[in-house]
Amino acid sequence: MLTLYYAHNTCALASHIALEQAGADYDAVRVSFARQEQRSSEYLRINPKGRVPALVTERGILTETPAILQFVAQTFPRAALAALDDPFAMARLNAFNSYLCSTVHVAHAHRMRGTRWADEPAALEAMKRKVPQSVGECFELIEREFFVGPWVLGERYTVSDMYLFTLANWLEADGVEPARFPKVATHRERMRADPVVKRVMAAEAT
Amino acid sequence: MLTLYYAHNTCALASHIALEQAGADYDAVRVSFARQEQRSSEYLRINPKGRVPALVTERGILTETPAILQFVAQTFPRAALAALDDPFAMARLNAFNSYLCSTVHVAHAHRMRGTRWADEPAALEAMKRKVPQSVGECFELIEREFFVGPWVLGERYTVSDMYLFTLANWLEADGVEPARFPKVATHRERMRADPVVKRVMAAEAT
Repeated sequence: MLTLYYAHNTCALASHIALEQAGADYDAVRVSFARQEQRSSEYLRINPKGRVPALVTERGILTETPAILQFVAQTFPRAALAALDDPFAMARLNAFNSYLCSTVHVAHAHRMRGTRWADEPAALEAMKRKVPQSVGECFELIEREFFVGPWVLGERYTVSDMYLFTLANWLEADGVEPARFPKVATHRERMRADPVVKRVMAAEAT
Repeated sequence: MLTLYYAHNTCALASHIALEQAGADYDAVRVSFARQEQRSSEYLRINPKGRVPALVTERGILTETPAILQFVAQTFPRAALAALDDPFAMARLNAFNSYLCSTVHVAHAHRMRGTRWADEPAALEAMKRKVPQSVGECFELIEREFFVGPWVLGERYTVSDMYLFTLANWLEADGVEPARFPKVATHRERMRADPVVKRVMAAEAT
């Protein structure tokens, strides 16, 4: 039995979709960012970083989306969520996921989480102003260089599709027009129409 | 044959140490950030992100430290650089590496690379001022919560040790006193004394 701690409209959605797609036996526990539950002593015992996602397993607790996604893919091999038997293909998958977590998500985070990196209100406003440009440049690179098609890494539907979809959902709020990226935009619509994705998004919205 | 593109004093050091420790047959090619070579059209064909590391393999080019580290560990299993046969242990390793790339390295990058996230000089100065605090908090968490000992993930020397060491080398320049973190500081000294690490650092310094 696995327990996923998630918050609505966060990157935890990717791990949530992966567990559902894998057919995993799991509980999903919502953490309210509005009530600052991620900073409660109770939650900090689960994830001292005060962030989501966190996945409680029988052997211990895992954090960080790229790590959880590979773990889910490896734990449920029948779901075929990654090219598990091919280290080079796995490295390509991990390189893409690592770019999402360390560059794309970080660019986005400067809109709402600027206090991680500066204190002055004027600096926080300066960061917010640059988000449309910095996030836009990330998605230009994804569209032009990394998106293989029909799925992001090629013929196979993988956990990277779930992760890209999760971050692409934030484009409008980040002031970036999705139509600039036809492959990403089409992929996002395809993902939104997927029954598993729909089920997870409905569960998170309630 | 592998080719690693690296720059001096960057996170590429971790991949460089991993290749050397693995006994890989590789070339190391220096990219000069001082001459902005990472922005040259020649280098952008290798890595369109304009960053290091990039690892050229027979099957294609890999980027992103966490992906390269796992790939090197899997490609050279005899070097025993990770618990390859244990998905949970690999997830712990990847969670740690993912934290380094998406949070610790990012906190550090606000000192020199602030123009990724804001344009105004005052905002860049505000970011620089917060680096000692934000990097310090990351290493407090590593010291208190994540460092198992004697190596960062426990009994086994892994690629995560190489990555932690790489980022811990930046502490003084980031305005953080290493003595605040006895486990990390001792680990750093132990790594610095390692013959393989010494060889790689000498090669990068020439």
